[in-house]
Amino acid sequence: MKAHVYVTMKRTVLDPQGQTIQSALKKMQYKGIEDVRQGKYFLITLEASMDAAAARAEIERMAENVLTNPVIEEFTYRLEE
Amino acid sequence: MKAHVYVTMKRTVLDPQGQTIQSALKKMQYKGIEDVRQGKYFLITLEASMDAAAARAEIERMAENVLTNPVIEEFTYRLEE
Repeated sequence: MKAHVYVTMKRTVLDPQGQTIQSALKKMQYKGIEDVRQGKYFLITLEASMDAAAARAEIERMAENVLTNPVIEEFTYRLEE
Repeated sequence: MKAHVYVTMKRTVLDPQGQTIQSALKKMQYKGIEDVRQGKYFLITLEASMDAAAARAEIERMAENVLTNPVIEEFTYRLEE
């Protein structure tokens, strides 16, 4: 089983890296961009023997406690067979 | 329209950052982890007036030429209304 974890800055937190990418893309004539936010992506491969409920619990614990700084970041995740 | 762009190291490229995260998680007693790869995640908001075909073309051009180093990285993306 694979878990895709996406970590982004909370909406209320400034994302200077995203803003820099946005203004760079604009200068390079890319069209139609309203906003860019940058985040982190983790692809975690889990042992095949793990069931979905255990995987979900473990991934949530990991994301909350290690992969994310809960003061400024939030995460979403998706499990894939 | 929103575009989610995920950039990861190619399968054949070593990912020392992912390996470090994996061994840290193991030391912290997280169970069932076989592999961790870290990548980048971009959430790009596009102007509402853009149609899906134009958005797809622009996002692909951006991801290929700016967001990804094609020597060692690859990308996937997903559009969302």
